[in-house]
Amino acid sequence: MPILTLLTDFGTADYYVAAVKGTVLRLAPGTTVVDISHQVPPGDVESTAFLLAAAAPSFPDGSVHLAVVDPGVGSGRRILAARTTAALFLAPDNGLLGPVLDAALEVRAVERSDLFLPAPGATFHGRDRFAPVAAWLLRGGALSELGPAVSDPVRLPGVSPPRRSPGGIRGRVAHVDRYGNLVTDLPAAWLPSGFAAALSTGKCHAQVGDLAVTRLVTHYAEIPPGEAAILVGSLGTLELSMNGEDLARRWSVARGARVDLGWNES
Amino acid sequence: MPILTLLTDFGTADYYVAAVKGTVLRLAPGTTVVDISHQVPPGDVESTAFLLAAAAPSFPDGSVHLAVVDPGVGSGRRILAARTTAALFLAPDNGLLGPVLDAALEVRAVERSDLFLPAPGATFHGRDRFAPVAAWLLRGGALSELGPAVSDPVRLPGVSPPRRSPGGIRGRVAHVDRYGNLVTDLPAAWLPSGFAAALSTGKCHAQVGDLAVTRLVTHYAEIPPGEAAILVGSLGTLELSMNGEDLARRWSVARGARVDLGWNES
Amino acid sequence: MPILTLLTDFGTADYYVAAVKGTVLRLAPGTTVVDISHQVPPGDVESTAFLLAAAAPSFPDGSVHLAVVDPGVGSGRRILAARTTAALFLAPDNGLLGPVLDAALEVRAVERSDLFLPAPGATFHGRDRFAPVAAWLLRGGALSELGPAVSDPVRLPGVSPPRRSPGGIRGRVAHVDRYGNLVTDLPAAWLPSGFAAALSTGKCHAQVGDLAVTRLVTHYAEIPPGEAAILVGSLGTLELSMNGEDLARRWSVARGARVDLGWNES
Repeated sequence: MPILTLLTDFGTADYYVAAVKGTVLRLAPGTTVVDISHQVPPGDVESTAFLLAAAAPSFPDGSVHLAVVDPGVGSGRRILAARTTAALFLAPDNGLLGPVLDAALEVRAVERSDLFLPAPGATFHGRDRFAPVAAWLLRGGALSELGPAVSDPVRLPGVSPPRRSPGGIRGRVAHVDRYGNLVTDLPAAWLPSGFAAALSTGKCHAQVGDLAVTRLVTHYAEIPPGEAAILVGSLGTLELSMNGEDLARRWSVARGARVDLGWNES
Repeated sequence: MPILTLLTDFGTADYYVAAVKGTVLRLAPGTTVVDISHQVPPGDVESTAFLLAAAAPSFPDGSVHLAVVDPGVGSGRRILAARTTAALFLAPDNGLLGPVLDAALEVRAVERSDLFLPAPGATFHGRDRFAPVAAWLLRGGALSELGPAVSDPVRLPGVSPPRRSPGGIRGRVAHVDRYGNLVTDLPAAWLPSGFAAALSTGKCHAQVGDLAVTRLVTHYAEIPPGEAAILVGSLGTLELSMNGEDLARRWSVARGARVDLGWNES
Repeated sequence: MPILTLLTDFGTADYYVAAVKGTVLRLAPGTTVVDISHQVPPGDVESTAFLLAAAAPSFPDGSVHLAVVDPGVGSGRRILAARTTAALFLAPDNGLLGPVLDAALEVRAVERSDLFLPAPGATFHGRDRFAPVAAWLLRGGALSELGPAVSDPVRLPGVSPPRRSPGGIRGRVAHVDRYGNLVTDLPAAWLPSGFAAALSTGKCHAQVGDLAVTRLVTHYAEIPPGEAAILVGSLGTLELSMNGEDLARRWSVARGARVDLGWNES
């Protein structure tokens, strides 16, 4: 039986996560269920999209990833099922599949109401619709049998990709992690000759709000106390960090903040 | 091996949950352990009773549900084991089995000290008593061998069931969830001709503290910004909610608040 | 397949824990993964050492315990693998193995870079180094093949063991738990004739900061409201507690506070 991951904004103080797990284990016995997170701020689709795209590649091929951050639950919004070369994804059609869709070989709108569970109301599709459809996929059901192909999935508005300019690149803070690190969307590979060259020459500087950073390092412990530095984070993008201190709090930077990176080519 | 669910007030920052899981996996290898929650406020038996009754029905038949919110640990309070048609329950005798007891076919006081683990003190029965007894049940032990039948389990004081009155019903807020929704104990089926009729005629209004609600909807996204509405929640009871906003905080409503629902029969 | 426990300061709002679990499940399919905690305050090695030593004994023999609280990630700090009679441990060499090392039969520095995963940067050894090495151990790899023996593991500075003095013992608050209980490092067995004798004679008193405690009890429910008492905690050490109230907050006591315990021999 393959692995099911769960990513929701349900929190861990309610019975919601357990109800989803119980339903899956009832309908697809033997499934290994792994939590990605249930601490997504309520309704925060962008954060969900980031976490899903970041976590999924670590899992074995054939895993099923169920993400339920679903302010439109019960409305006409579609339920999407997507397939990449490595995994299956199930989520409301509200943008949270984000980067997954770029790599999808097949995207379907789930219309198999025969799979849905009878429910007292329309507020908990996680338990009543997503869980049984996930169980059906875990038992080997084919994506193509879930419903019609979708060519127009909802995309998150307002999140533009990073772009290059002469002598620099511009992007944004894609995520602030528990430690206060600023994970940007700027690929380390976009630096001239890569990060290693920038590191050796020191010809690189970043600006985020009031914070200007000129130091490049390979790991946190290199950063002098109280200072900030640029390094390559765990997703291959540039990260701005302090050493044992919360940069985001110290400099009042939040997700979405603009990041400008420049260098002298000379 | 059946499933074991865990519901405690241990939090997730201590070693307590892991010690219970390790003990169960040592004594009943192969058990699938599923967390309901460990975020119950310390000693909050009523919240535990709500979560247990809400989560348990989703799990496969034969599951064992272990709930340890146990301010009386080490005292003379009994340990109860209960059996319904679908599942087994293990908990201190302090009221947390709540609605489970109404459906129980058999309730026993656990007196099998031979199953208990040697322990340095009397503060952690979760690890030293509940876990080994749960493991014994998971391995197929019979409830009837745990101890004498119990006919007088402790009941939560002060929680009266909802009741009907001419032109209305009165109940209480049974739970406030992560989103700030007010989950009431009022069955949607108690509305004249059910919720669908009330929805179509609009003849229904609710009062909770200073908040008066007249709008009925089927899902959150229908609710206009800043307004509150009545809908059928995931347990089949009426729920009061806002759309993307925390109603409980906005209107300062907590668990236990009285809810009056009325309608015009004309 | 044996059990893997995880103990980190990653929190549960990021993708970090899931990435470690996915990697382990990809490389060692069928592993049962159990969380000890991910709520360790960022970089708090002492807290990690306490939790690891407290939780590990409950798990089945042969379990692998992976602890990643690693402010030095990416630096020259070693990765240690240790073996006791009961279990295997994997952690950065920064003191967090703490008491485990005293019982270790074998300690190795992990130098098998062939086991490490290719990584974009040096910030996430949890996923890129610890997880694949843990998977290798879970699949039966021998500790001795991981690297050279280590005789000088890093020890936590500033944490001295409890000591006896005439008519008393002195130790410290080793941990403050979710309930506000003060878990000390003073073994209950150090009391003259043990805790039972002290309990029966009442000849024992403790001082922590401004708080003087003279009452001894066996369980929390015995403690009168508003008072504090001494009891034997779940690790066999003395604990200072209130009944349903947070002693640490009420008396402003934090981990590390000195605890003096005295008695009259007469």
